[in-house]
Amino acid sequence: MQAEIIAVGTEILLGQVADTNSAFIAQELASAGIEVYYHSLVGDNADRLTALVTQARSRSDLVVISGGLGPTKDDLTKQTVAQLLGVKLVQDDSAMAKIRDFFATTGREMTPNNRLQALYLAGSHPLKNETGMAVGAFYQAPDGADVILLPGPPSEMQPMMVHQVLPLIRKTYQRQEYLTSRVLRFYGIGESQLVTKLADLIDQQTNPTIAPYAKRYEVTLRLTAKTTQQASTEQLLTTMIAEIKRRVGTYLYGYGDENSLANVVVQQLIERHLTITGAESLTAGEFQSTLGAVPGVSAVFPGGFVTYANRAKHDLLGVPQATIDHDGVVSEAAAKAMAERSRQILDTDLAVSFTGVAGPDSLEGQPAGTVWLGLAQRGRAPQAKLVHLAGNRADVRMRAVMSGLDWVRQTVQASKK
Amino acid sequence: MQAEIIAVGTEILLGQVADTNSAFIAQELASAGIEVYYHSLVGDNADRLTALVTQARSRSDLVVISGGLGPTKDDLTKQTVAQLLGVKLVQDDSAMAKIRDFFATTGREMTPNNRLQALYLAGSHPLKNETGMAVGAFYQAPDGADVILLPGPPSEMQPMMVHQVLPLIRKTYQRQEYLTSRVLRFYGIGESQLVTKLADLIDQQTNPTIAPYAKRYEVTLRLTAKTTQQASTEQLLTTMIAEIKRRVGTYLYGYGDENSLANVVVQQLIERHLTITGAESLTAGEFQSTLGAVPGVSAVFPGGFVTYANRAKHDLLGVPQATIDHDGVVSEAAAKAMAERSRQILDTDLAVSFTGVAGPDSLEGQPAGTVWLGLAQRGRAPQAKLVHLAGNRADVRMRAVMSGLDWVRQTVQASKK
Repeated sequence: MQAEIIAVGTEILLGQVADTNSAFIAQELASAGIEVYYHSLVGDNADRLTALVTQARSRSDLVVISGGLGPTKDDLTKQTVAQLLGVKLVQDDSAMAKIRDFFATTGREMTPNNRLQALYLAGSHPLKNETGMAVGAFYQAPDGADVILLPGPPSEMQPMMVHQVLPLIRKTYQRQEYLTSRVLRFYGIGESQLVTKLADLIDQQTNPTIAPYAKRYEVTLRLTAKTTQQASTEQLLTTMIAEIKRRVGTYLYGYGDENSLANVVVQQLIERHLTITGAESLTAGEFQSTLGAVPGVSAVFPGGFVTYANRAKHDLLGVPQATIDHDGVVSEAAAKAMAERSRQILDTDLAVSFTGVAGPDSLEGQPAGTVWLGLAQRGRAPQAKLVHLAGNRADVRMRAVMSGLDWVRQTVQASKK
Repeated sequence: MQAEIIAVGTEILLGQVADTNSAFIAQELASAGIEVYYHSLVGDNADRLTALVTQARSRSDLVVISGGLGPTKDDLTKQTVAQLLGVKLVQDDSAMAKIRDFFATTGREMTPNNRLQALYLAGSHPLKNETGMAVGAFYQAPDGADVILLPGPPSEMQPMMVHQVLPLIRKTYQRQEYLTSRVLRFYGIGESQLVTKLADLIDQQTNPTIAPYAKRYEVTLRLTAKTTQQASTEQLLTTMIAEIKRRVGTYLYGYGDENSLANVVVQQLIERHLTITGAESLTAGEFQSTLGAVPGVSAVFPGGFVTYANRAKHDLLGVPQATIDHDGVVSEAAAKAMAERSRQILDTDLAVSFTGVAGPDSLEGQPAGTVWLGLAQRGRAPQAKLVHLAGNRADVRMRAVMSGLDWVRQTVQASKK
C-alpha cells in the first residue's frame, strides 16, 4: 500500500504561501501505516494537474490531492480529476444546504460559483467539511489507484483528514497496523558523531526505525515502531532507547517534538525549587529571554542583568574595576564575578554569566566565538569555563545560551544524586 | 526559461519536518524572472531521486535540488546526481579547510563522513556554504537541463541561494533582460489592509510587479522592474515607491531582504548619537537581545534590566512599592516608572519598558496579550501606552518587542524634524 500526495495552487507554487498540507497528510498516512514516496506541487493549471495525477496513479495505489476545491475560477481540481477519471460531478445536498444557510445568515450574496463547492465525484464517498463549504471526496476506482480530494485551507483540510479520511482508510484498506514515534533530543554532540556512535543500530534498523535530524543547535533522533498491538510498540521503543542511552546518554537532554533545552531546564528548576538569574554581556538578554519563553518560569526566575558595556558590568553588578582593567572582560575572573554578583543581588540559588566575543569583530585581542561562561551556586565558589563557538554573530550568541542552559542542566542533574 | 524544484529528505516526505525550502527557492527564482511549474519531494532514496531528476530535466531547463548534502549515509543527493549526469565528485579545498578548522576549533572529533561535505560535481561551479559545511554546486550541462544542488538546512540554503545562486543565475541566463528588485518592509499594518490600500496598483501591475508577502510580524512588498537598461529600472521603481509611500508611508520602516526593524532602529540611534536601555518584564530580555543582534550596537546600548518578578522591579529599579501595590505591575504607572528609572540608572537618552501578560494565564485580572509599553527620554516626562497583542506566548512577547522598537523609530524620526 503506497500513497502519493499532490498539492494544488499557484500561490504555493510561487512560494507566496508555504505548503503545510502535504506534511500533515504524510504524517496522518504514516500513522495508519501507509507509505508515501512522493509529494508533488502544481499550480492551478488543468493540463499539468492531469499529467501529474495520471503519473501518480500509475506508480501509487492512492493519490491524495489538496487544494483547488474553492469557488473561484482558479479552482479546477475537482473538474479536472472528474474528467480524468471519466465520472460526473454530483451535488451533495447537505453541503448545498450549508452553503445556502451561510449566505442567508450573513446576508451576503451567493454567486453561482458557490454551488461548485457542493459538488463531488459521482460514485465517491463525499467528505463533509466541518469548518468550511467545499465538500471533499474519497473515490475508490474500479480499476487503478484511488483518489482523495481535500480542500486547500489547512483549517478545513485537517479536520476532514483526521475525522473522515483516516477512519475510511483504516476500514477500506484494513490497516490494523499502528505506528508509535518517540523523539530523542541531544545537545553537545554533532549529527555525524551521533550517527557514528549508533552506526550499527542505524544500519540494522527495521523496527523501530531510527531517523537522525540535525537542527540548528541540536540533533534529534526519531524512533518509529510498528506493530498490530499497541503494547509491544512501547516495548520495542523502550529497549532501543535504553541502548541509545547507554552509548550517548550524557548528550540526551529530553524527549518530544515540542520540547527544548530551556523547557527541560525550567522544569528541573521548578521541581527542585531552585531559583536562577543571569548576567549577560554578548548574549544581551538572550539567555533570560529563552528562559522567559517557558510558561511557569516566574516561579524560579525573578529577573537579571544585561551588562553589555564595561561600565554596566561595574555599575550594575559591581564587578571590580581592577578585574576589568587587569583581566579584561573576556576572562575567567569577569565571568565568575558577573555570575556571583548577580546571584547575590537577586539572592538566587544559581546564576549564569556570559562574556565574550559575538563578532564579527574581535575584542580584547580575542577572536569572535571566544566565550567565557560563569556559573554561581549558593554556598559554593563560582566556576567558569571557556568555550570556542562556531558560526556568525547570531550562532555564537545562541550557542553560548545553549551551552549555559546545558551547564545548568548537568549541574542540577548531578546535584540530584 | 523554466525551472523545477526538488526537495530531498525522508523526514520531510514523512511530514516530520515541513519543507520551507521549495517556497523560498520559488520566490527567489521568481524574483529573477524564472518560471517554476512543478515542485516535487522525495525521500533519501537513490532510485526514486534518479527517476525524479530525469523527469525534471526532460521537461524543464533548470532543476534546483535542496537537501541530502550532509555527512550521514542518508545523504545521497550529490552521489546520485553525479552518477546520473556522468560526472565525478571532486573536493573543494576551501570547504575542506573550513571543515578541518571547525573540528580543530571546537575540539570535536572529525569523522570520515565529514569529508563528503566538501565534495562537489566536477565541472560545476562550487557554491560556498557561509553558515555550514556542505558545499553546493551549479552545474551547467553541456546538453540538457542545468542542475543546482543546495544544502537542506534553511539557515544554510537561504544565504547560498541569495548570495551565490541568484547572481550566477542572473549572469548565466539573463542575457539582455535586467531585473531589479526592491523589498519594502512594513510594520503595524496587516497584509489584507496593505493590499486593499494598494489594490489598483496591484491589479494594474506589469512593470514593476508588486508581490506582497506576510511574514510573522511584518509585511513586505517585493517590487520587481524589468528592462534592458539599468537606469530605467531605477526610474520605474522610484516612481512606484513614491506612490506607495504617499499611501502607506507611515508603516514603511525600511528596505531590503536582510533588513529588520531592530537594524533600522540601531542605525538611527548610532547616527543621532542616542543611547538606549530597556527594563523588561514579560519580554524577559527579548528587546535587549534583539538590539544586541545588530553589529555595532555597543556604541549606543550599555545594557539594562530584566525585571520579571515584582520584587526585581522594586529591588533593581526602585519602582515604588506603592505603585506595585496600588496600580499593579500591568499598569501605566509601572511602565513609566520602569522606563524612567532604568534610563536614570544607566544615564541613557532613551529607555523602553515592557510590562504585561504574555500568557497563557491571565495576570492581575488582565487577559494574555495586555501589554503596557513605557518610553523615557532625557529631559522629558516618561510616556506609556497600552497595546492588546494577538497570538500565543511567543507572539505576544515578540509583538511587544516590535511595538517597542517601532515606537523608538517613530520617536527618533519625529525628533529629527
